[in-house]
Amino acid sequence: MSGDPDRRPWTAQVLTLFPEMFPGPLGMSLAGKALEKDIWGLETLDIRGFARDKHRIVDDTPSGGGAGMVMRADVLAAAIDTARQGRPDQVGREAWPLIYFSPRGRVMDQALMRTLMAGEGVTLICGRFEGVDERLLEGRAVVEVSLGDFVLSGGEIAAMALIDAVVRLLPGVVGAAETLSEESFEEGLLEYPHYTRPQIWEGREIPEVLTSGNHGKIRAWRREQAERLTRERRPDLWARYRAGKSD
Amino acid sequence: MSGDPDRRPWTAQVLTLFPEMFPGPLGMSLAGKALEKDIWGLETLDIRGFARDKHRIVDDTPSGGGAGMVMRADVLAAAIDTARQGRPDQVGREAWPLIYFSPRGRVMDQALMRTLMAGEGVTLICGRFEGVDERLLEGRAVVEVSLGDFVLSGGEIAAMALIDAVVRLLPGVVGAAETLSEESFEEGLLEYPHYTRPQIWEGREIPEVLTSGNHGKIRAWRREQAERLTRERRPDLWARYRAGKSD
Repeated sequence: MSGDPDRRPWTAQVLTLFPEMFPGPLGMSLAGKALEKDIWGLETLDIRGFARDKHRIVDDTPSGGGAGMVMRADVLAAAIDTARQGRPDQVGREAWPLIYFSPRGRVMDQALMRTLMAGEGVTLICGRFEGVDERLLEGRAVVEVSLGDFVLSGGEIAAMALIDAVVRLLPGVVGAAETLSEESFEEGLLEYPHYTRPQIWEGREIPEVLTSGNHGKIRAWRREQAERLTRERRPDLWARYRAGKSD
Repeated sequence: MSGDPDRRPWTAQVLTLFPEMFPGPLGMSLAGKALEKDIWGLETLDIRGFARDKHRIVDDTPSGGGAGMVMRADVLAAAIDTARQGRPDQVGREAWPLIYFSPRGRVMDQALMRTLMAGEGVTLICGRFEGVDERLLEGRAVVEVSLGDFVLSGGEIAAMALIDAVVRLLPGVVGAAETLSEESFEEGLLEYPHYTRPQIWEGREIPEVLTSGNHGKIRAWRREQAERLTRERRPDLWARYRAGKSD
């Protein structure tokens, strides 16, 4: 930051009906310390504040019938438009995407985190109830992102996961650069097994190679273990890794 | 609950270095109301309380070198053994699994949530730092579960996602039963688009069929949309859905 005073820290805007959930876990530990140091910024907007009627209604019954409630396009659009004033909409959505969490979206992965981390920030819409009016997604060019193939009660915890995963990639958050480059997914492989003291625990010893002091052998063993784990547990990642190597 | 006084509510035990993160978002909204009503229970254990030295050290440098710190097997085992006293270890791990969040694990999905929800509870180990000693995973028959193909600073937000997704499936948490059965993944399809008032928003109208009052046509349209979205966005789910239908 210090090199460029005009550069604002990477910022997450969260549009939610539960602003009191934030920063929550993001205010502690790694992300919390980085937030205190202004390595990243957090702006929370209460969607209910953008309702136009005196009862502050944000949802309504689904057209065509059915259970649950649907979040109104007009209320959400007002919240989004306020959040994004002065944000780099004009220079392209890449630098500051607008994301809605939904099981229908692109499944979150480390490549998306790297892309987001390279931008200036992100606006996150946290749904509740049955979903949001489809016209909002079209009218505001919203990118749908899914935390995974399961259903949450709302987008808030998905937003926390996304923010945590991006923030730890920002410069100055995790101590040693190698900690990032050696971990899962960064090379397309799952991580090798870790061991630490005590040397023997419940009759189980640390693999001999790790205490051999032979760095070449240690590196080879770890690579072998990472490849074995990936092959056994995630044939999908393994296939991609192999394809990447033969390119 | 009231029908069987011996039946304890579904319980999540969380082993963490940051107990103050809980209940956090799980104390509000849907999960929070259910927690208040004792539909589920939350027990948080501070891993640091199980360190044996006076500095309360829980981690150490990795055997074989490298960046980061590894959580000690002995400290974690003590925490796990205390947490699981009196839990149904004897009758099989199915009813009360022991889960460690790791990118190397089985990727979380709605089927896992249904399985967990049918049990009595779950013990969740939240890692921090580089990882945990591999011998702990072997020695305590830990199931590794991954939130997705990205890296978090710790397991706490993954634990929150798992608990939220399970809790909303418990009887009495979500109002109408149909809200659960019609949503994403429950039929192997992504969800159809939702609409609500206003009838016209920024020149965009609600699809005519939804305001036709013809329930057969509405049902057919929604099914068609769910199939189209799944086919376009998630060829993997679509293939599984088609295979399941032809069985």
